[in-house]
Amino acid sequence: MTERAILGVAVIGTGKMGADHVRRIQEVISGARVTALVDVDAERAKSVAARVDGCTVHTDPAAAMASTDVDAVIVASPGPAHEAALLAAFEHDLPVLCEKPLTPDAASALRVLEAEQKLGRRRVQVGFMRRYDAEYMKLKSLLETGQLGRPLMLHNRHRNVASPPGWTSEMLINDSVTHEMDVTRWLLGHEITAVTVLAPTPSGNAPDGIRDPQFLLFETDGGAIVDVEIYVNCGFGYQVQAEVVCERGTARVGDGHAMVTHAAGRWGGTIAQDYIERFADAYDREVQTWVDATRRGEVTGPSTWDGYAVAAVCEAAVQALQEGGRVPVALTERPALYA
Amino acid sequence: MTERAILGVAVIGTGKMGADHVRRIQEVISGARVTALVDVDAERAKSVAARVDGCTVHTDPAAAMASTDVDAVIVASPGPAHEAALLAAFEHDLPVLCEKPLTPDAASALRVLEAEQKLGRRRVQVGFMRRYDAEYMKLKSLLETGQLGRPLMLHNRHRNVASPPGWTSEMLINDSVTHEMDVTRWLLGHEITAVTVLAPTPSGNAPDGIRDPQFLLFETDGGAIVDVEIYVNCGFGYQVQAEVVCERGTARVGDGHAMVTHAAGRWGGTIAQDYIERFADAYDREVQTWVDATRRGEVTGPSTWDGYAVAAVCEAAVQALQEGGRVPVALTERPALYA
Amino acid sequence: MTERAILGVAVIGTGKMGADHVRRIQEVISGARVTALVDVDAERAKSVAARVDGCTVHTDPAAAMASTDVDAVIVASPGPAHEAALLAAFEHDLPVLCEKPLTPDAASALRVLEAEQKLGRRRVQVGFMRRYDAEYMKLKSLLETGQLGRPLMLHNRHRNVASPPGWTSEMLINDSVTHEMDVTRWLLGHEITAVTVLAPTPSGNAPDGIRDPQFLLFETDGGAIVDVEIYVNCGFGYQVQAEVVCERGTARVGDGHAMVTHAAGRWGGTIAQDYIERFADAYDREVQTWVDATRRGEVTGPSTWDGYAVAAVCEAAVQALQEGGRVPVALTERPALYA
Amino acid sequence: MTERAILGVAVIGTGKMGADHVRRIQEVISGARVTALVDVDAERAKSVAARVDGCTVHTDPAAAMASTDVDAVIVASPGPAHEAALLAAFEHDLPVLCEKPLTPDAASALRVLEAEQKLGRRRVQVGFMRRYDAEYMKLKSLLETGQLGRPLMLHNRHRNVASPPGWTSEMLINDSVTHEMDVTRWLLGHEITAVTVLAPTPSGNAPDGIRDPQFLLFETDGGAIVDVEIYVNCGFGYQVQAEVVCERGTARVGDGHAMVTHAAGRWGGTIAQDYIERFADAYDREVQTWVDATRRGEVTGPSTWDGYAVAAVCEAAVQALQEGGRVPVALTERPALYA
Repeated sequence: MTERAILGVAVIGTGKMGADHVRRIQEVISGARVTALVDVDAERAKSVAARVDGCTVHTDPAAAMASTDVDAVIVASPGPAHEAALLAAFEHDLPVLCEKPLTPDAASALRVLEAEQKLGRRRVQVGFMRRYDAEYMKLKSLLETGQLGRPLMLHNRHRNVASPPGWTSEMLINDSVTHEMDVTRWLLGHEITAVTVLAPTPSGNAPDGIRDPQFLLFETDGGAIVDVEIYVNCGFGYQVQAEVVCERGTARVGDGHAMVTHAAGRWGGTIAQDYIERFADAYDREVQTWVDATRRGEVTGPSTWDGYAVAAVCEAAVQALQEGGRVPVALTERPALYA
Repeated sequence: MTERAILGVAVIGTGKMGADHVRRIQEVISGARVTALVDVDAERAKSVAARVDGCTVHTDPAAAMASTDVDAVIVASPGPAHEAALLAAFEHDLPVLCEKPLTPDAASALRVLEAEQKLGRRRVQVGFMRRYDAEYMKLKSLLETGQLGRPLMLHNRHRNVASPPGWTSEMLINDSVTHEMDVTRWLLGHEITAVTVLAPTPSGNAPDGIRDPQFLLFETDGGAIVDVEIYVNCGFGYQVQAEVVCERGTARVGDGHAMVTHAAGRWGGTIAQDYIERFADAYDREVQTWVDATRRGEVTGPSTWDGYAVAAVCEAAVQALQEGGRVPVALTERPALYA
Repeated sequence: MTERAILGVAVIGTGKMGADHVRRIQEVISGARVTALVDVDAERAKSVAARVDGCTVHTDPAAAMASTDVDAVIVASPGPAHEAALLAAFEHDLPVLCEKPLTPDAASALRVLEAEQKLGRRRVQVGFMRRYDAEYMKLKSLLETGQLGRPLMLHNRHRNVASPPGWTSEMLINDSVTHEMDVTRWLLGHEITAVTVLAPTPSGNAPDGIRDPQFLLFETDGGAIVDVEIYVNCGFGYQVQAEVVCERGTARVGDGHAMVTHAAGRWGGTIAQDYIERFADAYDREVQTWVDATRRGEVTGPSTWDGYAVAAVCEAAVQALQEGGRVPVALTERPALYA
Repeated sequence: MTERAILGVAVIGTGKMGADHVRRIQEVISGARVTALVDVDAERAKSVAARVDGCTVHTDPAAAMASTDVDAVIVASPGPAHEAALLAAFEHDLPVLCEKPLTPDAASALRVLEAEQKLGRRRVQVGFMRRYDAEYMKLKSLLETGQLGRPLMLHNRHRNVASPPGWTSEMLINDSVTHEMDVTRWLLGHEITAVTVLAPTPSGNAPDGIRDPQFLLFETDGGAIVDVEIYVNCGFGYQVQAEVVCERGTARVGDGHAMVTHAAGRWGGTIAQDYIERFADAYDREVQTWVDATRRGEVTGPSTWDGYAVAAVCEAAVQALQEGGRVPVALTERPALYA
């Protein structure tokens, strides 16, 4: 392998997620290295850079992108900073792996969508990493065989041990259920057309004022009904499950039944305690797939359109939570680029 | 055991369900015998009676109830005949095991409720036999310990291989989901206050014009959200599952994982093909429990109130299916007799 | 049902097992009643009789058997008393359900075998109740279809929470592994031809001097290899599992996966704590099957030959435990009566 | 990352396993590249080299090892060639990942052991890749906590769809059960002291003359009893399971229960069809761990001692298979280097 063939990556944002991507590229990923780090907090960027041989540090994404040893960009800064970073990458014609959300709202997502269309080709892979989980991939493959018939319903469970400080009722939707929105669209190949949100009396585990758990219903343009239980203060573990009900059978992933013990009057096993334990492989596969595609000159995976569509569904879901009832989702027409 | 101590039972209705109760009392149940059979079709009653020593045959329930060797009554006739049979049993002061539904609609159920109140004591056990399934009993016991905290959500699955000829979209609710209505009320100890029904594009397995599957949502006066997937033409088996999500944990029954095989590239087991395979033990336990209680002079189990409340929820659900949207459930005040 | 048709049963032995059979016949079984109780301890028999209408009490089995309202006998006395009780039943030409062991050793079992042959017809069902467990029955049925091919190996696990006071290393074989000996012979349709016993360093849970656990190997005349883990002080629960490995697949029973919970970082369920919890249904089915067959004038189920063969395997296993190495099993020729 | 920091690897042997390691290092592993390929069949080496930028091709391992851009060696040639390759690597002071077996017999393994001792430090990681499987690692971690008490027994299952052409009865032991020998020693921290092999009448699936399945018993110097079912023509899938029975509980890995489907009357999932499907992650982790350790200047993982001990157990097992009975294992004293 010649030096040239190693992908030089600029990582924008060196917080928890960005620093983890740096570690991943250094220690796990084949065929890439970190050549630039960007953070508005230069000190934070420098402290991460101290563990990386020969990478430059910047406070401005565009400066990093101008560097000759930057071949591609990972955007891991806070959501509100994504639009500017993406537009800068478009200007430098660099491929991007953009952490979710694409942008914080549908209007800004639409601007990015339009900018990418002007380029005339895809530059962005959005970080919906469920698509790279081995179990979800298996489920997708099974559905594609058609052997179970057409999907009719999709039941999702999404549980976290505890919500971080400062969470709001809306963040259950915007930060967590976004994964199920993408999963719904990807697994079924449908767009979501309406959202209803119900919420039981909040759990005693939930911080004051937070409506946790919630129960969301999606209707799709393919005639499917999708439900999502989101419970971010369940206390007992991190659990993500999906069950597709098709005409002739069902398939479920996420049981997490690896090692079975018998002890103290019980059979069973342990539940993962966070997304890193559950989805570390999916993140690794996501980034390796992106590196491999980028080195081949391709862009694959979840697109800007997917990021935009999820942003639009989020807005409807938040309205449904706040106002009650069923809220339709309005999407712009799907551009040919994302057909 | 003296002859007197053996409970003499009149079985009203000798169709599939009635004949099965006759067999059960003859071959499985301890402490009871069939002493009278009733059917408007006397020939059908006679052919069942041919397998029972010393039982009389009648076309009129009241005639059977007047017999001195009838100590108790099982009502297994079609739903529209239940009201008259129950009122006759009240007149003869006989305890009754009444197959579900109590009566076909809330108004007639209310009349039975009022008649029983005039007696001043319970005479009726309604045939909601899920309460006698070992797994549901275990789930109920667990919830009663309180160790998982308050129940927040209940997810139900109810799947049949194929619907009988002549089924309508409404019968998915009236004949099948009634079980989940009772299970919801019994497991959670809540009344259902509103119903919403969604339906995906029907399965290709469903007969023309039948909306199958359906997805129902119940709200309860205890602040829980309950969902029910009902799919009566799934083709692959008979499956009934329930998962309660409580504040500190979840519990699920109905996986049906008895024998595990490894063969032909697959691990797993077989799925029951009908309710008899899945719930034979529950029916046996239901009837044995009724016989035992009756011999002790007691009436236990699901009451006339339970039968009435489910009838009222059914009416709301059918309206929700037909008209869309969320339909509230209006119950009369709960009489002290059923407190 | 006429009075005559109810089977009158004498129960010999009113200890734990006998008293449980009395309760079972009174409260669970259809078509039988207890008409006589026998115990060398007359007071114990009387105290059990106090809960049964109209049954007589005896200290001599033969006296009970002479009673006109005794149609059949359950032998639940200690093993050393079985031979006399069985021979007395043969004299009175009464069908017997004999708790395991048939007799305490192969020589006495052989005497019973010969006495029954002189009668020229089977009178005894031996209490190997695993054959009446729903899961083992399912496994047997699957093997009989032949769809997995010929059985090659059988792996058994048998675990108890704790051994009763006074247990010896030999009792793991004589009291517990006898079930697996019968299961092996019944499931595979083979006779056991040799036994090897290995034992790890005893568990810290085992009482001083007890070799617990043990690991037994059976060779069969059908060319199968069978292993049995017996561990009677495992502390965590009562577990009985069997896995048959056939040419084209395997099948396993005994996982006991009824209700699944997620709580406190773990998924899974509870393990039964004793044989009553695990096998109550099997005991009920065993006795109901015996009552039904007896009322039809038939004798079915495990035979005197089965009781004898297991006694012979036990003797070989105890020798293998004490002396080490592989011990062949010597059986007399199988009489035509048990073909 | 500077060019110097990327580990240059010579792969010796470019057959199926060697070629797979080349692909792995190219596409999966972080921090290494293939710089030399060695095969006695130069054409085969060249055709693999065609897919690798800038690597040299050799027919002599020593020539490759002399190259300045070779920092470490993977030995994936046939077993009989291992000894020479290992000794050459010792001469060049290069760290080695040596595919199992270390060498084909205990005598040659002992020579390698002695040669490495003369170096005075470990150079070899043997390719017992089970130790890098996530489930086995979890099992090992659980045992190390001690919460289940001391391990008493270990039950292993090892099943393959079909044996390759040319397999012999001995190869079930030498090629397959070697994994369980290493797993036993690693999981329990015991040496194996005696082996017994039993074999049922061979499966109809087994090629003529092959004793398949076999059932092996290991006794250990820690007082544990270990059994291994090896069945390499089971037809239905590739399955590797281990269940440790400890004083206070058991733990099992290898169920492979990822996605659960319900269809066509069955619940369950698919079984892996080969070791690549089941253990791809373990191979990746094995090689990444070796690369990481090597770059840090360390040697970790299964040692030359482990390779030697397994070779000695194999010899005993083959003798036990051929001659019957229990065969003790004689190991040389464990050198301090491997303490």
